[in-house]
Amino acid sequence: MKSKPNILVSNDDGIEAPGLQRLVEALKDFANVYVSAPYTQQSAVGHSITIFYPLRAYEHMKDDKFFGMAVEGTPADAVKIGVLHFFKDVKFDLIVSGINHGANTAINIIYSGTVSAATEGTILGIPSIAISLTTFSKVDFKTPAKIAGNIVRQIWEDEMIKVHPGILLNINIPNAEEKDIKGVKITKQGKSFWQDSFEVRADPNGRDYYWLTGKMVYRDELTEFDVAAVQNNYVSITPLHYDLTDYAAYEEIKNWKLNK
Amino acid sequence: MKSKPNILVSNDDGIEAPGLQRLVEALKDFANVYVSAPYTQQSAVGHSITIFYPLRAYEHMKDDKFFGMAVEGTPADAVKIGVLHFFKDVKFDLIVSGINHGANTAINIIYSGTVSAATEGTILGIPSIAISLTTFSKVDFKTPAKIAGNIVRQIWEDEMIKVHPGILLNINIPNAEEKDIKGVKITKQGKSFWQDSFEVRADPNGRDYYWLTGKMVYRDELTEFDVAAVQNNYVSITPLHYDLTDYAAYEEIKNWKLNK
Repeated sequence: MKSKPNILVSNDDGIEAPGLQRLVEALKDFANVYVSAPYTQQSAVGHSITIFYPLRAYEHMKDDKFFGMAVEGTPADAVKIGVLHFFKDVKFDLIVSGINHGANTAINIIYSGTVSAATEGTILGIPSIAISLTTFSKVDFKTPAKIAGNIVRQIWEDEMIKVHPGILLNINIPNAEEKDIKGVKITKQGKSFWQDSFEVRADPNGRDYYWLTGKMVYRDELTEFDVAAVQNNYVSITPLHYDLTDYAAYEEIKNWKLNK
Repeated sequence: MKSKPNILVSNDDGIEAPGLQRLVEALKDFANVYVSAPYTQQSAVGHSITIFYPLRAYEHMKDDKFFGMAVEGTPADAVKIGVLHFFKDVKFDLIVSGINHGANTAINIIYSGTVSAATEGTILGIPSIAISLTTFSKVDFKTPAKIAGNIVRQIWEDEMIKVHPGILLNINIPNAEEKDIKGVKITKQGKSFWQDSFEVRADPNGRDYYWLTGKMVYRDELTEFDVAAVQNNYVSITPLHYDLTDYAAYEEIKNWKLNK
């Protein structure tokens, strides 16, 4: 039996998002939970950090008690300042980011603020987990928070997490009744992508503005990929990293003779 | 002899940045050049896209002639809307992002707007190149633009680029006299990272605000890594990709038995 882990929770939907609130409740069953999360909605910010402006942060209260730090910044900012400043006396065992309202699978991972908060955790040397629910519909997050809590506890109890401080896990939970969720699959990032376009509209003064719109093109049929796993009602766990080197391409081009 | 390639140029320092202006001039020697770049400075935005608000864009003039589209958005937004909307009748052969004012090596890659513009290009199926100059000092970008132009032309003339639409190259040019630059190295993303901290200051009303500050911790001594290559006065070219799956970790954990 391990001692209680110290977990920092963040997200990209903001500190008041129900996905985060429910996740905190679920993790408190077995962990000491600290919160440092963006003050407002930060979706699709990618792995941004704030360097040209200073950050502001506020003590966020809930039921008259200190709940966590609300940071006027990105998810990566919130994790960085949470670990390095606000809770610097805490030795964190895990960073958990979520529960995001919407899937972070396939190409969406690179735009994801939820994943970027977890990535920042591993950059700081702490095992980190991003958790998303695969729906944009209004939900109460009760079932996904229960599942998330169970899985985070099991991961924490596995010895592997201790020897891999750089581990970064991206979890997607299907939006389904608990009884319909078939189990947990370890997966790879899928190749599905967005077929994007821009819709042009005119404002009341006749000037154009542009809305990004698009539809997902599905490329992944096997449940070894994140997209297909959640479509088939499995919880998907994909190990990620931030070494972006394309080693296959490196082998192909390493002998290129280019002049300056 | 190939026909003139169509190149879309973007960046994260904004359409008026000298790094972009000089790059455009250098590429015009052998290419048809189009520009779609952020209206303002967008550094450290990571791979952000704008989805909650519409985009605005303006025709940017230079010497009374149309120069390109200035997009009120991120580097990824500018590339997406440039390819899919403003220049949708052009078949682009390359996307080139830069020249960034500051290195994009090692961990900096994941925060980089310059790299994110190129990444968005490869997501759209177009070979893409990010180019950065390894200094924040004031420079005229004349030498780096010449080197960048030479290298992009050589890459374009290589047949490989045609058969790898997904190729994504991250180029860093050392800030040195042309004669002191030793050559071009194909490299891997280094492991150097920032040792960050936050400096707390009080505003005139006595409220705290926080500045991110830090110093780079160098981990890469071999010129097979981007950081060391540029420190040793080589131009560094690192092939990147956006499949973030950690395949080594996948093999380790794929048989994990976790319950929902």
